[in-house]
Amino acid sequence: MAGPYTLAQIASQLGGRVVGDAQVLIRQVGSLERAGQGQIAFLANPKYRAKLARTGASAVVLAPDAESLTALPRIVCDNPYAYFARVSQLFNPVVRQAKGIHPSAVVSTTARISSSASIGAGCVIGDEVTIGEDSCLYPAVVVYPGCRIGARAIVHSGAVIGADGFGIAPDGGRWEKIPQAGAVVIGDDVEIGASTTIDRGAMDDTVIGDGVKLDNQVQIGHNCRIGAHTAMAGCAAVAGSAEIGSHCTIGAGALVLGHLSICDHVHVSADTVISRSIREPGTYTGMFPFDDNASWARNTALVRQLAELADRVRALEQKLKEKGGGNG
Amino acid sequence: MAGPYTLAQIASQLGGRVVGDAQVLIRQVGSLERAGQGQIAFLANPKYRAKLARTGASAVVLAPDAESLTALPRIVCDNPYAYFARVSQLFNPVVRQAKGIHPSAVVSTTARISSSASIGAGCVIGDEVTIGEDSCLYPAVVVYPGCRIGARAIVHSGAVIGADGFGIAPDGGRWEKIPQAGAVVIGDDVEIGASTTIDRGAMDDTVIGDGVKLDNQVQIGHNCRIGAHTAMAGCAAVAGSAEIGSHCTIGAGALVLGHLSICDHVHVSADTVISRSIREPGTYTGMFPFDDNASWARNTALVRQLAELADRVRALEQKLKEKGGGNG
Amino acid sequence: MAGPYTLAQIASQLGGRVVGDAQVLIRQVGSLERAGQGQIAFLANPKYRAKLARTGASAVVLAPDAESLTALPRIVCDNPYAYFARVSQLFNPVVRQAKGIHPSAVVSTTARISSSASIGAGCVIGDEVTIGEDSCLYPAVVVYPGCRIGARAIVHSGAVIGADGFGIAPDGGRWEKIPQAGAVVIGDDVEIGASTTIDRGAMDDTVIGDGVKLDNQVQIGHNCRIGAHTAMAGCAAVAGSAEIGSHCTIGAGALVLGHLSICDHVHVSADTVISRSIREPGTYTGMFPFDDNASWARNTALVRQLAELADRVRALEQKLKEKGGGNG
Repeated sequence: MAGPYTLAQIASQLGGRVVGDAQVLIRQVGSLERAGQGQIAFLANPKYRAKLARTGASAVVLAPDAESLTALPRIVCDNPYAYFARVSQLFNPVVRQAKGIHPSAVVSTTARISSSASIGAGCVIGDEVTIGEDSCLYPAVVVYPGCRIGARAIVHSGAVIGADGFGIAPDGGRWEKIPQAGAVVIGDDVEIGASTTIDRGAMDDTVIGDGVKLDNQVQIGHNCRIGAHTAMAGCAAVAGSAEIGSHCTIGAGALVLGHLSICDHVHVSADTVISRSIREPGTYTGMFPFDDNASWARNTALVRQLAELADRVRALEQKLKEKGGGNG
Repeated sequence: MAGPYTLAQIASQLGGRVVGDAQVLIRQVGSLERAGQGQIAFLANPKYRAKLARTGASAVVLAPDAESLTALPRIVCDNPYAYFARVSQLFNPVVRQAKGIHPSAVVSTTARISSSASIGAGCVIGDEVTIGEDSCLYPAVVVYPGCRIGARAIVHSGAVIGADGFGIAPDGGRWEKIPQAGAVVIGDDVEIGASTTIDRGAMDDTVIGDGVKLDNQVQIGHNCRIGAHTAMAGCAAVAGSAEIGSHCTIGAGALVLGHLSICDHVHVSADTVISRSIREPGTYTGMFPFDDNASWARNTALVRQLAELADRVRALEQKLKEKGGGNG
Repeated sequence: MAGPYTLAQIASQLGGRVVGDAQVLIRQVGSLERAGQGQIAFLANPKYRAKLARTGASAVVLAPDAESLTALPRIVCDNPYAYFARVSQLFNPVVRQAKGIHPSAVVSTTARISSSASIGAGCVIGDEVTIGEDSCLYPAVVVYPGCRIGARAIVHSGAVIGADGFGIAPDGGRWEKIPQAGAVVIGDDVEIGASTTIDRGAMDDTVIGDGVKLDNQVQIGHNCRIGAHTAMAGCAAVAGSAEIGSHCTIGAGALVLGHLSICDHVHVSADTVISRSIREPGTYTGMFPFDDNASWARNTALVRQLAELADRVRALEQKLKEKGGGNG
């Protein structure tokens, strides 16, 4: 652990404007609720303002419009959340694995691994794989032959990169396998979560853009293209040949069906199935509401009768119109 | 395989009251449908009573209110399902892995592993990890540095404990990584399924209570707290900082969104998304009903027009009220 | 890479009828959109006919009813997609792993592995496992004791076969573990995707039929039976003791609840929860429609009031009937 630092020292490294006692000594970050003496917290979301009044933190990071809400020593900046991330990096410097290839890893002699990369215990790296500088593969990652990973990647345990896509053609009641002759190409600054799987392409490559962040247990089908700086939360899945733009966010458990395309700056809510292409930036949702079990059972039975209900409303309208006509 | 035992011997070990021939010899457990000579089955759910009449089992375990439904030798007890679990344990004693650390496992010299624990082939155990007595990690489990696992844990292959949580802050079109400086703390008597992932906390720890049972491919986000004796079925997921009480059950594929809290004794049905906190015990459901494809298409199109349909019903009510007023 | 071959040579190996220049030389397969000189594409779905007119491919595979839609050299056959799969196999011969057991794999001395099988780096194969001829387990697969895999299997990295099923009985606020004494039995010609998990049975075996194809991150619960030539897309899950027929397809993220049975030739759409048994072949769907977030919020709130809305429609019908009666 690094530090401690005074508020003044933090601001001199990371920018921002100090208000109040610049000499207060900070040892670690904390949340508004739990931070105590020597810790710095942050306020990014206005709905947590009530917590600011009660915090035990020694200092806070906040935006100009919240500057006067506390008497605590504070750093005022435009993006308190990103600023907090950097303060946390300061106090929690990354101690990843040792550089180099762990002796228990199995690495093909034809793989090209940057000398500054770190390949964890039990990783298996196939033929002709390339891995860029400062990338870190935690233990038990598998990279199939021919796949390429850029610089500064972080790949968590259990991730599988480059397994065959699900390419099968029906033929007289059996399935004929379609060779998966493409690879996976991953840009720079990508993070891949634990047990996430990214399939190799059938003919072309599966492509993951620069700065993409994938949480755990994400599944990316063959020939997908994920645009730069898009983030996908846990258990999200993208079926084969779908293209997702840049700067998108895909919520936990969401599913994008195959061969669709989603433009830049689209936000898909958790558990939403995208069943047609999206051409306008915005937020899209398709989460079914939960309820206590009895209410759910009562209401849900009617989902199967919606068309009939609409017909009955139409009939009522017609009948009333006729009556109205008779009276008018 | 252990045994055989007479019914009397079983009851003397596990309790319960024998009715009928206590000397019948039992070699193994079985289901009511498939059990044959020398096997003992059980009846817990009244809806399977018809199967009791047709069973080929040599004996059955059942509750007092079902005692007179069969002439077979039987053990009468209050909880036939739990009793059956124990009978099955009797005939199928656990033969897990050999105690100790498999030579192919990679274990940090600073990890503290109980001498009665079993660490399978290919496991990777990080610095400062602790693993309690009689715990069994099957092959290919990864435990990241600093995580703690209690006594009598069963962890299945492919599970990843302590990978980084999904902490990223948007900053000018890119993502800034938030260090994940917490760990994972797992109580006693916990079972973790194959390929399940439990993320380490960002600042505080992720906490899994005593007696928690997680099925396969479950995902637990950073800073979650799962209460004691809660069980989660396959592919369930809990987003970051959610708190789930004790004695809850979470169905297959269900999703609890981030920062929510669920009280004790809540039962979430399969495929249900919990999108706000739950403060009352009970069963909650949000499963969308399936139908044949044509009916589904017809009804589902109307979900997107529900607000309009409700407006039309309101207009009809208003019109009829006016008319009624005219007549009244 | 194999070839090049003339169209005539391809047809002599794989059948079909050549129309146009049979001597055109083909080096690789490609898609209608991207194929260029020396590549052969295919047209299977009539909705892609417009792409046929614009393709840069040197030849195409198509069905008799599309034969006259292009002047390009072509192979006419009954099933262009399956034919294309075979052409792709011709130009992309499978180069899986070397036969035999990788030195880093941990294989029980009591396992019976065909000498023509290939066991990848880091695989762990338990006691009494059998693996049939020409099967290929990619790196980091775990097969628990007693499981059986047939001939020509392809198992991708991270798959876990035979972990304990989720068998727990509630007992006074705790969970009693039910021994999982069955195994997993997998037929011939099965493909299993990356990080897919198949649980061993509790008493009987979990059974995967011949020719079954499972994509990545699929979860199969204990005692399930999956019929021959059924295919399941990514992240699909089948809860314990469910039986799925032969020649079914299960879409991505779909879920089949426990103890249900699905007959042959059933097609379940993506993200659909099957909550009761299906006895008629056909296509079944239960996907909740997504919308822009504001529209979704407005419409979805009404799902929780559907029963009330139906009551109001009924009241309107009644009132109108009374009025109508008064007028009639």
